[in-house]
Amino acid sequence: MSRQMVRPGGRSARVQASVHTAVRELASEVGRDALTVPMIAQRAGVTPSTIYRRWGDLQELLSDVAVERLRPEATPGDHGALPSDLTAWAEQFLDEMSSPAGRAYIRDALLGDPDGGNAGQCSAYAAEQIDVILTRASERGEKGPDVETVIDHVVAPLMYRILFRPDGLDAAYARRLVTAVLDPTGR
Amino acid sequence: MSRQMVRPGGRSARVQASVHTAVRELASEVGRDALTVPMIAQRAGVTPSTIYRRWGDLQELLSDVAVERLRPEATPGDHGALPSDLTAWAEQFLDEMSSPAGRAYIRDALLGDPDGGNAGQCSAYAAEQIDVILTRASERGEKGPDVETVIDHVVAPLMYRILFRPDGLDAAYARRLVTAVLDPTGR
Repeated sequence: MSRQMVRPGGRSARVQASVHTAVRELASEVGRDALTVPMIAQRAGVTPSTIYRRWGDLQELLSDVAVERLRPEATPGDHGALPSDLTAWAEQFLDEMSSPAGRAYIRDALLGDPDGGNAGQCSAYAAEQIDVILTRASERGEKGPDVETVIDHVVAPLMYRILFRPDGLDAAYARRLVTAVLDPTGR
Repeated sequence: MSRQMVRPGGRSARVQASVHTAVRELASEVGRDALTVPMIAQRAGVTPSTIYRRWGDLQELLSDVAVERLRPEATPGDHGALPSDLTAWAEQFLDEMSSPAGRAYIRDALLGDPDGGNAGQCSAYAAEQIDVILTRASERGEKGPDVETVIDHVVAPLMYRILFRPDGLDAAYARRLVTAVLDPTGR
């Protein structure tokens, strides 16, 4: 999390937006590992000390940008039933998070994050999306697990394997996790 | 993984041992964030270029040391039955990995690890320990899940929460995960 509160529309918000944009542009131009604070400051039109004052160091800045990139862009699609909603969401989550860009963002979010707030935010994004899916299911009269159970038995295995044992990860695996969490007796 | 193969007992193995020892000693003396390659080289009695040649950079060296520290020190205890064996292992795993030192090692193992080999090694350690427990259970005639199922539904939720949402993690949570994986119908 950035060290200052951001007042929407104020100078602080404009600085954040221009610095984040500079990081994204430069990362695609020169590669993430070549980024430096002076380079980012110049592109964003701020002084390096503005960046150090606000983010502490490059790692924390990259962590903030990563969390922003990991924010879901839309509410989960409505396919008419819980199994298809959750399956579609899990497949998309795996697809995005296991891509080279997704992996890099997850690592950045975890790393420059001394207080754990950024990693917590990533997990909160997933929990919010799952909550939307489960609430919709409940409104249709469908029974389902709770959010924490889906976190434990769908999100956690996907993220664990992305980080620790990526071999053989595919959409079929995501579908099996969803099937098992919706029908634990069938395992 | 270090870039060169290590010949046990050879100069390469001695360099590795002295550099690893220097990292551990200095980390406890000055703190992990104050470590530099020249400082480590001096303590280990090697040149900085030896370290750069072998490990690439400080991050990769710290990743290597972290994996070594995460290696289990003993085979899992035999408590006479699968539920108690797996529960005791899961409680100890959570305890070690969620400690400040454990968290720091996990982050280091994940970070300075461009090819993912070190993270894979951490996961392989857990899989080996679980395999010992399940094989012992099978030899007693007990039925149980397979290793990958325990990874997905016990190790993954523990590690996911350690990294992304550590609030409220306790031994009771680890025990619930084990109970659920051994009796999926009871959830």
